[in-house]
Amino acid sequence: MKRVDLNCDLGESFGNYTCGMDASVIPHISSANVACSFHAGDPLVMEKTVALAAKYNTAVGAHPGYPDLVGFGRRNMAVSPAELKAMVIYQIGALKAFCRSQGVTLQHVKPHGAMYNMAAKDRKLADAICEAIAEVDSNLILLGLSGSEMLKAAKDKGLRYASEVFADRAYEADGSLTPRSLEGSVITDEDEAIARVLQMVQKGTVVARTGEEIAIEADSICLHGDGVKAVEFAKRIRQALTAAGVEIVPLSQLK
Amino acid sequence: MKRVDLNCDLGESFGNYTCGMDASVIPHISSANVACSFHAGDPLVMEKTVALAAKYNTAVGAHPGYPDLVGFGRRNMAVSPAELKAMVIYQIGALKAFCRSQGVTLQHVKPHGAMYNMAAKDRKLADAICEAIAEVDSNLILLGLSGSEMLKAAKDKGLRYASEVFADRAYEADGSLTPRSLEGSVITDEDEAIARVLQMVQKGTVVARTGEEIAIEADSICLHGDGVKAVEFAKRIRQALTAAGVEIVPLSQLK
Amino acid sequence: MKRVDLNCDLGESFGNYTCGMDASVIPHISSANVACSFHAGDPLVMEKTVALAAKYNTAVGAHPGYPDLVGFGRRNMAVSPAELKAMVIYQIGALKAFCRSQGVTLQHVKPHGAMYNMAAKDRKLADAICEAIAEVDSNLILLGLSGSEMLKAAKDKGLRYASEVFADRAYEADGSLTPRSLEGSVITDEDEAIARVLQMVQKGTVVARTGEEIAIEADSICLHGDGVKAVEFAKRIRQALTAAGVEIVPLSQLK
Amino acid sequence: MKRVDLNCDLGESFGNYTCGMDASVIPHISSANVACSFHAGDPLVMEKTVALAAKYNTAVGAHPGYPDLVGFGRRNMAVSPAELKAMVIYQIGALKAFCRSQGVTLQHVKPHGAMYNMAAKDRKLADAICEAIAEVDSNLILLGLSGSEMLKAAKDKGLRYASEVFADRAYEADGSLTPRSLEGSVITDEDEAIARVLQMVQKGTVVARTGEEIAIEADSICLHGDGVKAVEFAKRIRQALTAAGVEIVPLSQLK
Repeated sequence: MKRVDLNCDLGESFGNYTCGMDASVIPHISSANVACSFHAGDPLVMEKTVALAAKYNTAVGAHPGYPDLVGFGRRNMAVSPAELKAMVIYQIGALKAFCRSQGVTLQHVKPHGAMYNMAAKDRKLADAICEAIAEVDSNLILLGLSGSEMLKAAKDKGLRYASEVFADRAYEADGSLTPRSLEGSVITDEDEAIARVLQMVQKGTVVARTGEEIAIEADSICLHGDGVKAVEFAKRIRQALTAAGVEIVPLSQLK
Repeated sequence: MKRVDLNCDLGESFGNYTCGMDASVIPHISSANVACSFHAGDPLVMEKTVALAAKYNTAVGAHPGYPDLVGFGRRNMAVSPAELKAMVIYQIGALKAFCRSQGVTLQHVKPHGAMYNMAAKDRKLADAICEAIAEVDSNLILLGLSGSEMLKAAKDKGLRYASEVFADRAYEADGSLTPRSLEGSVITDEDEAIARVLQMVQKGTVVARTGEEIAIEADSICLHGDGVKAVEFAKRIRQALTAAGVEIVPLSQLK
Repeated sequence: MKRVDLNCDLGESFGNYTCGMDASVIPHISSANVACSFHAGDPLVMEKTVALAAKYNTAVGAHPGYPDLVGFGRRNMAVSPAELKAMVIYQIGALKAFCRSQGVTLQHVKPHGAMYNMAAKDRKLADAICEAIAEVDSNLILLGLSGSEMLKAAKDKGLRYASEVFADRAYEADGSLTPRSLEGSVITDEDEAIARVLQMVQKGTVVARTGEEIAIEADSICLHGDGVKAVEFAKRIRQALTAAGVEIVPLSQLK
Repeated sequence: MKRVDLNCDLGESFGNYTCGMDASVIPHISSANVACSFHAGDPLVMEKTVALAAKYNTAVGAHPGYPDLVGFGRRNMAVSPAELKAMVIYQIGALKAFCRSQGVTLQHVKPHGAMYNMAAKDRKLADAICEAIAEVDSNLILLGLSGSEMLKAAKDKGLRYASEVFADRAYEADGSLTPRSLEGSVITDEDEAIARVLQMVQKGTVVARTGEEIAIEADSICLHGDGVKAVEFAKRIRQALTAAGVEIVPLSQLK
């Protein structure tokens, strides 16, 4: 029986600012990536998000980002590997403490935004993240882009890792995401997106933008909770997977 | 044989800014309070400070502060107990991760500046700090002002705690620190300061500003590393205590 | 003919976070208090908010706050008068530059949240704010709580000032706001709130919580834009005032 | 008679952190670039730095940087031109307010660190900075790297601008700075540095790393105040220029 994880970024509210429909999307996912107060979130939001995940028995992961609140961690920053390692250790530790205080086991680490994208391509940054994870808790699973340098770094380091795919993004023939600047980079038809996800999970392949059927490892599907439509889609995809006999499980039960 | 701990705030540098003579003062102390990036410090500085403490076999404590970098955590802020608890959990967790990554056991928690002063008098804030500590790691020792609400809260909660005294501060007859606004609040004569420390450690008493000899619990003496003179004084006080047969040990070996 | 200003806090969004229905409420007000990136807002939001105000011909004021983004500037902070003066100069200057770049004249300054509340009672803080205003642009109008130390400080300094009242708050016999901890501190009935506003504007009096009719100076009424209901109320109060023959004008045209 | 400006970054202290020997270096320079609290400085430091400049009759410029305090504004950040324009307007305005409050005329704008380096090569960023300057105060002089896109953008926009050279850096044959990764990129011999400065100022040429004598426009020389040695060098270079008959004047008196 096929298994897959459904992950979503949660805990992105900050102080007086509310962001995301955490309580609505959480019933549909199996793993929550919780912001750690660098690009989003604050200590009180982190505490509440871990409590929400505990209530729904959803696995918790750290979602570290660059120290760029106004840019929501989406702007590339030229941080050194040493700076990156330290900021990842810091953020994992902070979230782990909220997990500890609530009797929850931290399951995984998924870097956010620009950190995720830069480390997907830059092996030195990928290594820095993996070192941080290994030194804080070698049981943690790195969740990274399918085919990325992050997954290679985790494998070489002996870390557990999981390969993330996107329901709404096109892929190039080499397995990389089609850049957003190219036409057709985003799959807007929901039925098509669901069909693609089923193929990725069941057959382990996806049709590239240029027509080739290529291999892809789909351990976890990235969903969104930032609007009614996104939440509805999360519900639909969960139903479609379940109906097709795919079991939805958190990352730790995948392998 | 009498025992006492010597503690000092370390890791207060930040980015391009250097603050404190950490490497010079650390040989003279037994416990280091490491800033956690809210009022001072940054992730890279935290990593280096834990490494420095490990090198000198100095015990490490978390030194959480208010989120007020420009005010160095010294300005009172009207935070709620819930906010305070969350920010203390966060900061302890962050430092604990650096300890874990370097094989160091986190020993204690000493709140900083305005957080320390406010929680010394406000039981709700003191309780919030103690709950944070208990939930993250119930083995941690709370280091707080002698006679403060923080120590009472720790005792009631069943937490380990240690009572901090100051070499260079006068005390009132009720055991509280003489407010800085009063004349004679600061002991500027080093010989007098050392004599007072010896009395506090050996006899468990101190002469109050108004002349009474009062009881005081001196588990740990607060030293400073922010200048050549402060470092010299740390060295002198260590020598005086050792010469008097007092053993300098980290908090965890006190009781 | 009676005149009154209707003011509202705008520009409180931040980076990825949206806050407030600025575009919906702005047609109903005459003066906008624009956040200056300390407690809310960011440079890009400030630019857009000044542009929005320019489009609707709404007067612009600086809305400086404490450097406490996570607390939305609502937490009391023990800042010194010198620190306060410098942070107010800084924030006024920043907003004034956006006004200058768009050909808008900065009209007023209304401190935010905890800064507003603390300076309402503390003359030293009130003086610091007034000095900041006078030194940056002595034409600026200080908008402060009716009967507050801020207005007294402005008067003594020769600054222009305007007295703010609240439609939805009860007053004590001495003219101060009824503390929120007391029953009846908030007027929840909209018709009653409107009737009270009319009385304040037309008669210059309000009925205190304890029944006395007291004098109150109502130069400007504080409205809110943080929800559909608030916007609807803003519209209603504007209509009620206009119907009663009161002219809605920005602060600069009051006196 | 030849004229040149000597500029130096000042006001880089922050809260409890002291950085730079501002009071020692200021007698030797003619223009001060004052940090604006994004990469360094805080409102109180800005106020004091403008006062220091006023005391020494040193011209004041805004020194805007990226919002990256922990990285001291030295880390490249992928900000959009719109974000950059807004953050430059904001910072210029903030400093201008301190100038206004002290009766000082703001003379120039020199971007800091990564913002300076990125805008030197990226015309869109350079244009964004120049638009910000032009809209806030079209009298301001842009101080930028000799031969950079910033100077070209200023020229095209009709802004006043000045060309900055470095005493301690080697140049390539195309007039660009020799990358620090190449040997010989930094001139460590002080006599050689002074001789090069004299040639740049008097002849308008410099010998490139590869031996060619190339044209270079030296309106202002960048000095440093971050240490005793740097301050001594500032003093020496001033004396050497004066002895050679070159007049030291602020940017506004150059042309």
